[in-house]
Amino acid sequence: MASTELNVNARRYKLPAQPTVVVCVDGCEPDYLAQAVATGHMPWLKRALAQGSGLIAECVVPSFTNPNNLSIVTGAPPSVHGICGNYLFDTASGTEVMMNDPKWLRAPTLLAALAEAGKSVAVVTAKDKLRRLLGHGMKGICFSSEKSDQVTLEENGIEDVLGLVGKPVPSVYSADLSEFVFAAGVKLMQTRRPDVMYLSTTDYVQHKHAPGTEGANAFYTMMDGYLAQLDAMGCVIVLTADHGMNAKVAMDGTPDVIYLQDWFDAWLGAAQARVILPITDPYVVHHGALGSFATVYLPSGTDVEAARSRLQQLKGMEAVLTRAQAAERFELPADRIGDLVAVSERFTVIGTSASRHDLSGLDAPLRSHGGLSEQRVPLIVNRPLPGLDTTRRFRNFDAFELALNYAQ
Amino acid sequence: MASTELNVNARRYKLPAQPTVVVCVDGCEPDYLAQAVATGHMPWLKRALAQGSGLIAECVVPSFTNPNNLSIVTGAPPSVHGICGNYLFDTASGTEVMMNDPKWLRAPTLLAALAEAGKSVAVVTAKDKLRRLLGHGMKGICFSSEKSDQVTLEENGIEDVLGLVGKPVPSVYSADLSEFVFAAGVKLMQTRRPDVMYLSTTDYVQHKHAPGTEGANAFYTMMDGYLAQLDAMGCVIVLTADHGMNAKVAMDGTPDVIYLQDWFDAWLGAAQARVILPITDPYVVHHGALGSFATVYLPSGTDVEAARSRLQQLKGMEAVLTRAQAAERFELPADRIGDLVAVSERFTVIGTSASRHDLSGLDAPLRSHGGLSEQRVPLIVNRPLPGLDTTRRFRNFDAFELALNYAQ
Repeated sequence: MASTELNVNARRYKLPAQPTVVVCVDGCEPDYLAQAVATGHMPWLKRALAQGSGLIAECVVPSFTNPNNLSIVTGAPPSVHGICGNYLFDTASGTEVMMNDPKWLRAPTLLAALAEAGKSVAVVTAKDKLRRLLGHGMKGICFSSEKSDQVTLEENGIEDVLGLVGKPVPSVYSADLSEFVFAAGVKLMQTRRPDVMYLSTTDYVQHKHAPGTEGANAFYTMMDGYLAQLDAMGCVIVLTADHGMNAKVAMDGTPDVIYLQDWFDAWLGAAQARVILPITDPYVVHHGALGSFATVYLPSGTDVEAARSRLQQLKGMEAVLTRAQAAERFELPADRIGDLVAVSERFTVIGTSASRHDLSGLDAPLRSHGGLSEQRVPLIVNRPLPGLDTTRRFRNFDAFELALNYAQ
Repeated sequence: MASTELNVNARRYKLPAQPTVVVCVDGCEPDYLAQAVATGHMPWLKRALAQGSGLIAECVVPSFTNPNNLSIVTGAPPSVHGICGNYLFDTASGTEVMMNDPKWLRAPTLLAALAEAGKSVAVVTAKDKLRRLLGHGMKGICFSSEKSDQVTLEENGIEDVLGLVGKPVPSVYSADLSEFVFAAGVKLMQTRRPDVMYLSTTDYVQHKHAPGTEGANAFYTMMDGYLAQLDAMGCVIVLTADHGMNAKVAMDGTPDVIYLQDWFDAWLGAAQARVILPITDPYVVHHGALGSFATVYLPSGTDVEAARSRLQQLKGMEAVLTRAQAAERFELPADRIGDLVAVSERFTVIGTSASRHDLSGLDAPLRSHGGLSEQRVPLIVNRPLPGLDTTRRFRNFDAFELALNYAQ
């Protein structure tokens, strides 16, 4: 390739001159970093913030993992890439379907474009659910910690990851699942020095542990050590997050839940409206499928504005928007959200029916995300960013722009 | 008195039939209770919430101690009682003056009215700065932990508080200062059984310790034990707070401060505008006089709306209002606030000039209050409240209404 620039989803990027690592730390509310740095748990980050750039950015709402990871790797909001949750209500078939399949993706990723431009690219995710979406159309290495024992050259662009990393396959519910991502990233950089690497962790720790607590600080100390190793190898590092994280409990310590399907059933009759929780996925033990975002399909003939206004009155609701309002404000694909979008407040989550949520797996007071209260995320680069207008609004999906256009 | 009702500041209250205790826990963000209950640290509160009433209320903005304590004891917002901060800029003299003197109070307290109606009333505060305001015009017992060794029958309505409580005078910077309030309350109830008691603590612990941490849980376990004793003596107990509390730090762990006097000086010239921080008081070691609320006096001739709009653009600002807007929205006395009122976001505080804040006393990452992000407070009653419309908006200054009109 003679060109030194790429144009992906209407944004221009320079090609990397140094190994560039974008890290998406799942559920990394900035206060995790603040409390850990303040108490001496992240010496590398403290130095990186002093010598580099520490910005606060806004993630995509719904503040969930998949929409935000796809935004980061496409440099675009869900209105462009199409992934607006883990779950989608397929109105044609009347069924709820997972959005893990790349067929739902409407835009190319920057990772695929970089590989196409001749750059070596490696992607490591914690859970396998993200891997196929992130790696779509991409030549290079792409695997998950979760299925690190099942990699093949054909499917993942690499063999014997367990041999490379020197660790066993971690449990899907563990801090180790994320540590494996960092450990693999360091080994890949040591052995293959990819031009671009994307590392994406899981928020198992953040769902259980608040900023400044021992459990959280231990995780961030672990992370800090690996990032220091990548930095020492000369990498440009951008650290961002898919979303923040907040306690979601009532004063009695139980989850503070608005059971929205029950609310609509009591108002309109059973199963007339359909409440969709796009946080739902096969791994719900740590949050019980409870987040601060829901979309609602109303029966035909419903006065949508009247329903919106009525729902907005509910205590604990931060914002209730019509489809058009939500599509505009949150940059969502209008054809993949319901007639209403409901966002609950900082301490409140939205459920469907009380009977449909199994909260028996919650062994700590609920912490979750999904709403506007979890939109604030770090956007940290271990380099100064000369020429950058720091007064502009930053998004987590500006990560590659900062890395490639300002930090090299 | 033949009447069984009182009318104070345009609200009607029944006289208490049982000993009634209103507790204002300084800086008690509801999550402190949630995390402590969830982890078994508050067995009394867990029971009280199950058998009584657990509401969430909104405090007065600025979410500071004095305006809210005065609202609770007058049942009215600052537009009625006049106390809108610790500090006031006296435009007549061009000086900043403390608002601790009862001369600033514009409304009678419910405590004074209850005493006038023949009920025995006792007030215990942590810091002495509040005592004179709370006890204004009131016959009965009124003293502070801070000056518990200096009480006189004439000034405080009681002698030998140290002998009664059996504890030494606590340090003004300690959890003991608040424990003394509870211990005194229990002893007063055991020995004198006042009809009405108002207990008000200090937020020394909350400024240092986040919800769910060891330091916070120890405080709430202590409190739970004393409240259990008051409950066992048959008291109606209302637990509320003057304001919440949030971490106020940047990702490097230092306070995230907008130095607003510096900002105005750079724009309008040195000392043309005057920034007032109503959180300022003689006890600033634990927060460095940094909170999320400021008022600003602009030089005459300034286009106020233009200044408002310009300041609203600053990153970290949640709301900037003109005097009239702030007086209406926050129910503040228009003659005691500046031309602008500025409220910063959850993680951000407002300072005057960097050179005027001594942060050397901060021995933990800054936690503070003052803004809309600290407006959510508990309003808990250890009784069911039959007939109460629980969908209405609750304020912390509804505490006596719930206690006297619904819980007896």
